Amino acid sequence: MSGWLKVVGLGPGRDALITPEVSQILLEATDIIGYFPYVARVQKRPGLTLHGSDNRVELDRSKLALFLAAEGKKVAVVSSGDPGVFAMAAAVFEAIEQGPDQWCQLDIEVLPGITAMLAASARAGAPLGHDFCAINLSDNLKPWHLIEKRLRLASEADFAMAFYNPRSKARPDGFARALEILKECCKDDRPVVFARAVSTKDETLSIVGLSQTTADMADMRTMVIVGSSQTRVISRVGQAAWVYTPRSVPE
Amino acid sequence: MSGWLKVVGLGPGRDALITPEVSQILLEATDIIGYFPYVARVQKRPGLTLHGSDNRVELDRSKLALFLAAEGKKVAVVSSGDPGVFAMAAAVFEAIEQGPDQWCQLDIEVLPGITAMLAASARAGAPLGHDFCAINLSDNLKPWHLIEKRLRLASEADFAMAFYNPRSKARPDGFARALEILKECCKDDRPVVFARAVSTKDETLSIVGLSQTTADMADMRTMVIVGSSQTRVISRVGQAAWVYTPRSVPE
Repeated sequence: MSGWLKVVGLGPGRDALITPEVSQILLEATDIIGYFPYVARVQKRPGLTLHGSDNRVELDRSKLALFLAAEGKKVAVVSSGDPGVFAMAAAVFEAIEQGPDQWCQLDIEVLPGITAMLAASARAGAPLGHDFCAINLSDNLKPWHLIEKRLRLASEADFAMAFYNPRSKARPDGFARALEILKECCKDDRPVVFARAVSTKDETLSIVGLSQTTADMADMRTMVIVGSSQTRVISRVGQAAWVYTPRSVPE
Repeated sequence: MSGWLKVVGLGPGRDALITPEVSQILLEATDIIGYFPYVARVQKRPGLTLHGSDNRVELDRSKLALFLAAEGKKVAVVSSGDPGVFAMAAAVFEAIEQGPDQWCQLDIEVLPGITAMLAASARAGAPLGHDFCAINLSDNLKPWHLIEKRLRLASEADFAMAFYNPRSKARPDGFARALEILKECCKDDRPVVFARAVSTKDETLSIVGLSQTTADMADMRTMVIVGSSQTRVISRVGQAAWVYTPRSVPE
């Protein structure tokens, strides 16, 4: 049996951000599995089968990938960004744990990618240059009170914070509540970066003081980064400001 | 004036993990600036000047880069991993803030890379598949009590935790204290990943229950990832176990 399963990250959008090891796997694969818009980023070619599927079927998609790899196919499960950050890698391991023992013996590998928060951070400057946390603001798979608890503790720890999935049509209200909590917990008007569709043709970037943020500044394609108490803004004439968090915290 | 300054990430070690956009910049640059071992990863060629420097001179290095860019040179400041995560990008912006106004008008860009925690996470499975934090355990640039506070709050928030710079010859004791705090704060024997020199020929990986961890399991080339209360281990016959954090947290 010569099949394998690689869970790969396509980065945030632009092809120049896909690692060579992932590009090579996309050339060797017989089957590509993933959410429709990510599968659509893979070049079609003879001998390659594309299996696009809808959102919220991550476990079914993982099982299909494992079945095909067990049959001898060379399967790439594609995620945007990094597959290990709020993406397909965890879903594949959940499926393995629920599946037949033989799936544990398959040739499986996770290949990292440029996750959205790092692309957004680079675009804005270096807001994640000191200790930080990454929180998925969707409460589809966890209770909302846990998100609130994490926001309060992350504020108290004075982490910079990167928020994935801040807001969607199905969850219009959570992000407004998150901003309320942050305005309450953070005593200062620290910078907030809204980075939408970074590295694609739809890219936009804005930097807003926390007190001025409103929920409609984010949608499902936006990465939100909230600075720590130390985060600084460097204004520039005629260009977007830079945002960075210094490496040091004074005693 | 045609100079520029790009702050680029070389990824964790293997060339196949360097993004094409960074590889292209390394070909276009006239000057490469960075810590000796990272500069040594860049291919020498006629017309390219390599400026390696020692650890702990990040601000001087940044100023040199800015001077050269202002003179019209095409300068790449190289970091291992991602330049925005405990690396050179924040130092460059600190230097800009301290420097002459004209440095603000330079053509400066940060190009992301695969940071160590994502490479380590991919190698182990998907331990960062749910909310997590990243903490630099070095107290060279921040007070130790802040690290302790963050460890306690991150435990309470039930984040998975990725630790950069856990231990060095100059700081032999901090990591032992960090492990003591985690053993006290985390009620369960969650998995801990020690991933050393990922993607290089020196790569090693081990997975240990928190109660069994000792400080000598890490050195300055080790990335340490501590699971959340939800993190799971999938054992395999004759192969390293997989570690992953499920996407969901039950109510």
